[in-house]
Amino acid sequence: MTEKLQQFKEALHEIADYLAVFALLEWDQQVNMPPAGAEGRSQVMSRIAEQAHNLSVSAETIRLLEEAEKAVAGIDPDSDDARLVKVSRKQLDRELKVPAAWVSDFAMTTATAHNVWEEAKANNDFSIFRPHLEKIVDMRKQYADFFKPYDHVYDPLLHFFEQGLQTKDVVEIFAALRPKQVELIKWISEQPQIKDDFLHGRFPEKDQWDFGVEVIKDFGYDWNRGRLDKAVHPFSTGFNLGDIRITTRVYENLATSSMFSCMHEAGHGLYTMGADPALDRTPLTFNYSMVLHESQSRLWENLVGRSKPFWKHYYPKFRSQFPTQLGNVDLAIFYKAVNKVEPSFIRVEADEATYNLHVMLRFEIELALIENRLQVKDLPDYWNAKFKEYFGITPPDNARGVLQDVHWSSGYIGYFPTYAIGNVVSVQLWESIRKDIPNLDEQIEKAEFKPLLGWLVEKVHRHGAKFECQELVQRVTGSKIDPQPYLQYIETKYTEIYGA
Amino acid sequence: MTEKLQQFKEALHEIADYLAVFALLEWDQQVNMPPAGAEGRSQVMSRIAEQAHNLSVSAETIRLLEEAEKAVAGIDPDSDDARLVKVSRKQLDRELKVPAAWVSDFAMTTATAHNVWEEAKANNDFSIFRPHLEKIVDMRKQYADFFKPYDHVYDPLLHFFEQGLQTKDVVEIFAALRPKQVELIKWISEQPQIKDDFLHGRFPEKDQWDFGVEVIKDFGYDWNRGRLDKAVHPFSTGFNLGDIRITTRVYENLATSSMFSCMHEAGHGLYTMGADPALDRTPLTFNYSMVLHESQSRLWENLVGRSKPFWKHYYPKFRSQFPTQLGNVDLAIFYKAVNKVEPSFIRVEADEATYNLHVMLRFEIELALIENRLQVKDLPDYWNAKFKEYFGITPPDNARGVLQDVHWSSGYIGYFPTYAIGNVVSVQLWESIRKDIPNLDEQIEKAEFKPLLGWLVEKVHRHGAKFECQELVQRVTGSKIDPQPYLQYIETKYTEIYGA
Repeated sequence: MTEKLQQFKEALHEIADYLAVFALLEWDQQVNMPPAGAEGRSQVMSRIAEQAHNLSVSAETIRLLEEAEKAVAGIDPDSDDARLVKVSRKQLDRELKVPAAWVSDFAMTTATAHNVWEEAKANNDFSIFRPHLEKIVDMRKQYADFFKPYDHVYDPLLHFFEQGLQTKDVVEIFAALRPKQVELIKWISEQPQIKDDFLHGRFPEKDQWDFGVEVIKDFGYDWNRGRLDKAVHPFSTGFNLGDIRITTRVYENLATSSMFSCMHEAGHGLYTMGADPALDRTPLTFNYSMVLHESQSRLWENLVGRSKPFWKHYYPKFRSQFPTQLGNVDLAIFYKAVNKVEPSFIRVEADEATYNLHVMLRFEIELALIENRLQVKDLPDYWNAKFKEYFGITPPDNARGVLQDVHWSSGYIGYFPTYAIGNVVSVQLWESIRKDIPNLDEQIEKAEFKPLLGWLVEKVHRHGAKFECQELVQRVTGSKIDPQPYLQYIETKYTEIYGA
Repeated sequence: MTEKLQQFKEALHEIADYLAVFALLEWDQQVNMPPAGAEGRSQVMSRIAEQAHNLSVSAETIRLLEEAEKAVAGIDPDSDDARLVKVSRKQLDRELKVPAAWVSDFAMTTATAHNVWEEAKANNDFSIFRPHLEKIVDMRKQYADFFKPYDHVYDPLLHFFEQGLQTKDVVEIFAALRPKQVELIKWISEQPQIKDDFLHGRFPEKDQWDFGVEVIKDFGYDWNRGRLDKAVHPFSTGFNLGDIRITTRVYENLATSSMFSCMHEAGHGLYTMGADPALDRTPLTFNYSMVLHESQSRLWENLVGRSKPFWKHYYPKFRSQFPTQLGNVDLAIFYKAVNKVEPSFIRVEADEATYNLHVMLRFEIELALIENRLQVKDLPDYWNAKFKEYFGITPPDNARGVLQDVHWSSGYIGYFPTYAIGNVVSVQLWESIRKDIPNLDEQIEKAEFKPLLGWLVEKVHRHGAKFECQELVQRVTGSKIDPQPYLQYIETKYTEIYGA
């Protein structure tokens, strides 16, 4: 029995090693690669993606999986081995539907598109990105077709990142969030506005960098297993449990951007770092629910990083780092400023009241593209019109509009909903944490994050990808994914901030 | 015909892509990888090395090579295609002798050893590195055995890096160099000594970095296709002709180390960058003569970078960057200081008169290890005794002795001779260059490197790895590899410097 399982795990290790190579190629592409390396890189990425796919669906892997299924029949279905086999089966059944040629072509297409997107964004030129995005959208439609019959054409795309939800679940959650968030934003817009001009000064890169490093070190980010670099769009990745990397970007004219990026990406990194080492180099450390992943990143970024106790501890340090800019700004003012609610162009900089609307906008657009109701050539205008509808303002250019996010260039159509649902889950978890750690605020005020991280490791991280999002949320919080706590949280938070 | 060749090239591209992945894994390991990533990285490197090997010796590759051999029969034997097939055949015949399991084990062993070596060097602790080096030496002996019968047990190791030479050629060249160099060094030691204390001050990293970048940019290093990073031991690598990277290390208490490293590694980078794009992703851009490679790096480092015309141009800039340290040092004094000859511990910092002796020491030691005359456990003492014999001084610790070089940790036993023979070749090329570019000195004095680089591209770089070292030297200079021009060059140079 054990031997069969061991053989299966070795096959999984081989696949995981190729996925690790792919992740390194991608990390390096976004962090280091000189421009002229793009073409060669696309070829290599395409080749490695195809090899990983071929190994995943090989007759030998299937045979080993079948043996493994027999080996785990009857054991505790929640055990690592049983879950590993279950997750692997689900993954195999998905991968079997996708031709190797598509995998290879898609890797080549997105690797190429990524560099074009960087250039398009830098030069505010959608036209050069357009043909690449057209191909990506077409390929994503093909991908969905491989999964026919489906309930919804968007389901296979969503499942690429989040297997635990259906498109109709997303629609339902968003339908609950949207009117309440719009109502809250409207109420806020009628209150006296918060001053935050002092956040837009000059904040030298090195000081911002050092502050971010200090904070995530306090969170528990393990530098022996990780590193922080700069990238055009912040992201996190990992090659094995000993090498988990995050990136940020620094705007010297904006005090808070890099700091919150660091916390967000460290949240992803901490999640992966917390997995049980026994799960390393298997689908249980690769095949994550992105809703759960985003619940972790958004938890550290917002529930910790935009909280009053957090700034009670860190603001004196932060202020002393930038005495010219912040010398006259006291804690109460600063706390309000980093929580200022206003319609803004950039999703990753958005406050907690408007953030989900940025996601809904993208979800709507992705549905329109995939359902053939929108063509890529019309996307910038469509984006701007929708943006006006959602936020009452029009992006001044495509770089701050349709080109702002890296996701589509990487083929990540279907990803965005996980951010908003991650927000929802983060607050559900937070309520459970508060019950178990009643003095959480006092701990955060002292930068004592060990109990919090310990809770997350115990309840969430150590399981790796054993549980899908609904199941894990149910196990930990006792209820399914529910937007009400999030709505309650933002209402309470902003009523205090804006009503005071 | 063309179709058969094309199919063969596609097979070569696949192999090249895996070698590119391996090179990236190695680059990242030395430049970026967090410490805990070592174990996972070894596994991945081992897997990719084995895959590249398996593809190289697959029945399909052999079949395609045989077809390609038929296709090129009768065409110009110097054409790219004929040479590609010839080089591929030689490589295949070599690779067929080596079992895949050895390749995989060796990659795992050296990837692991590299990180241990870094630690051993940092802590000046040979004992932790010893078992790894023992395994490497044992595996290198096994490797040599795969090639029985051989003229010399060291031949297969040398051929790993330099197929154009036999061990007896190395012995012969070193026998010609050694007595003359020893004699020159003795004469120099009897002259009034050169003052260079001003080079050992405080030279901030950023200033050193910027200067190195400026110089190699002037040389023609293409930042669109390359980048410069920090590593424990400077090296160069490349993944395809669009992505060729170099590294350096900076000692803030030593003015010249990083600068000459930059020039040396840029020399390697320029060589690779100069290859005809048609050769990309084939053995003709992977399977280089390391003698030729080192002839390029040493040419830029020494014949350009330690020359009087070079410093006529750059010294005013360099001096103005470090006014406190160099304000009272004029050009003549500075030029002598960067050419000071003295026994020293570190090979890569050595002057041109003593450098080859550092190489001969290593060659002697490698022979002793491979011929079973020396055991790894006795290596530090052996090193120190030999060092005393060669240089009259004893290394103060292993970090500045047997642990100084990265090569053995990477399994590079057989590499060192290429540095000294590269020096020899660099001067032979330099004499030809002087004939073709009579005003070379004036050009260098104006930092006009285009004619020099153009010559090198035309005569050397564009050919990639089409020619082995003896053949290329013969074609370009009209004679075979000959140590006399090098001896003449250092005698003239140092007589002027020390006799003046």
